[in-house]
Amino acid sequence: MLVIGERINGMFKDVKNAIKTQNKGVIQDLARRELAAGANVLDVNVGPASAVPADTMKWLVETIQEAVDARLAIDSPKPAVVEAGLKVCKNKAIINSTDGNPEKLKALMPLAAEYKAGIIGLAMDEKGIPSEVQGRTEIGFKILAAAMEVGLEPTDVHLDPVVLPVKFSQDQFPATLETVRQFTMLSDPAPRIVVGLSNVSQGCVDREIVNRIYLIMLMTCGVNEAIMDPFDKHLMDAMITTELLLNKQIYCDSYIEAYMKSQARC
Amino acid sequence: MLVIGERINGMFKDVKNAIKTQNKGVIQDLARRELAAGANVLDVNVGPASAVPADTMKWLVETIQEAVDARLAIDSPKPAVVEAGLKVCKNKAIINSTDGNPEKLKALMPLAAEYKAGIIGLAMDEKGIPSEVQGRTEIGFKILAAAMEVGLEPTDVHLDPVVLPVKFSQDQFPATLETVRQFTMLSDPAPRIVVGLSNVSQGCVDREIVNRIYLIMLMTCGVNEAIMDPFDKHLMDAMITTELLLNKQIYCDSYIEAYMKSQARC
Repeated sequence: MLVIGERINGMFKDVKNAIKTQNKGVIQDLARRELAAGANVLDVNVGPASAVPADTMKWLVETIQEAVDARLAIDSPKPAVVEAGLKVCKNKAIINSTDGNPEKLKALMPLAAEYKAGIIGLAMDEKGIPSEVQGRTEIGFKILAAAMEVGLEPTDVHLDPVVLPVKFSQDQFPATLETVRQFTMLSDPAPRIVVGLSNVSQGCVDREIVNRIYLIMLMTCGVNEAIMDPFDKHLMDAMITTELLLNKQIYCDSYIEAYMKSQARC
Repeated sequence: MLVIGERINGMFKDVKNAIKTQNKGVIQDLARRELAAGANVLDVNVGPASAVPADTMKWLVETIQEAVDARLAIDSPKPAVVEAGLKVCKNKAIINSTDGNPEKLKALMPLAAEYKAGIIGLAMDEKGIPSEVQGRTEIGFKILAAAMEVGLEPTDVHLDPVVLPVKFSQDQFPATLETVRQFTMLSDPAPRIVVGLSNVSQGCVDREIVNRIYLIMLMTCGVNEAIMDPFDKHLMDAMITTELLLNKQIYCDSYIEAYMKSQARC
């Protein structure tokens, strides 16, 4: 399981303030702590409030890389902001994200090829999120095909079935799980399958249990990456135990500690 | 989800002692508390130490039914003990269990038909537990066919993929999940799919997290019944949240309390 830490995002107040005051310490501390908590990749998002988002992205990436040696997911809806981040990434980056919209694919796939980056592809397009499994799977296949055309490997493509809030879109949930199963069969080797987890619990009273249970369900169907909160220890323990029961980690009495040690990055 | 409470079992010391001293209060208190905690059916097992198991089974069933009005799962490897329980059950019972062994099918299927009971069928036979999905699915189908022959409905058949301890049989786990998926496609309507959950964590240091995570994974693949511990509140909350995310319960902010109220039996 690839854990993409979600905390370096201008939506969070501490990150927003750190960006405003150019406080490197706050960002670097978050980066170190996310990796220590088990994140394998760090998502980097300037948030909605940044005046010059490309400059902010560059500053964030450079600030993080001064402190840690980690893969980054460059998270922005704007191709220029994505490129500003990719330009300064030292390790193989992940673009977060394209979808099936031809304009987006045209703008972002060449960037992925040029910077030898992976790319997250959401199962939606300019018309929205298809409610049926088939529509979402087709978009996934379209994204995969566009990636092949620019020379990426299937494993550079991180397909995302699109996780909606259970409070508002509950009827979509069986289709989301089935979309994940379909994604596992799109190519050989299969694309990576990723989710933005925390969205599921938007507006819920107890967000943590909803996040945790849904991650286990998604992993059971084939998800092998999540943008999530590595500081949620119960979530991490649930993830590790799911890996164990999927026979992806070997049992020992201290399997959780053993997993954490095997992932240690700092 | 049908929760079959596992606590009235002579393997537990309190039940063993209550049987020995014919202490009805202990058994009746367990029955009431299991139902209050969310069990829908109570498993009844005399345990290995009983000298006259058929008499003990009759006593247990009658004792429980003096206190509560509930469905019971009559749990014994011996057909005579099963029949002693069935004879006195007031509600539709479940026989726990047969497997694919022709001798067992011959002894137990007519009992299920005679007493209009459901029957749990383990995906194993006189040769053991097949390691591959196909072998287990074939046994499931054989049990289902034997049930049809005596006039049972598919929904009276509760197929069990056989849950093994992760500590000793970890390599079997992907096959178990896939067997569950195959069971969902054996008939229309599908058979019920049940597991004896607690076996997964035998010998584990932290049994509760392993039980809990595995239940979520099994439910995601199609399991809709479990013999489990209803007193484990975290397990029950995980089960209810999984139902929610499978779109089988409607979201409200207090969905866990709402579920418990909807299941209330006493």
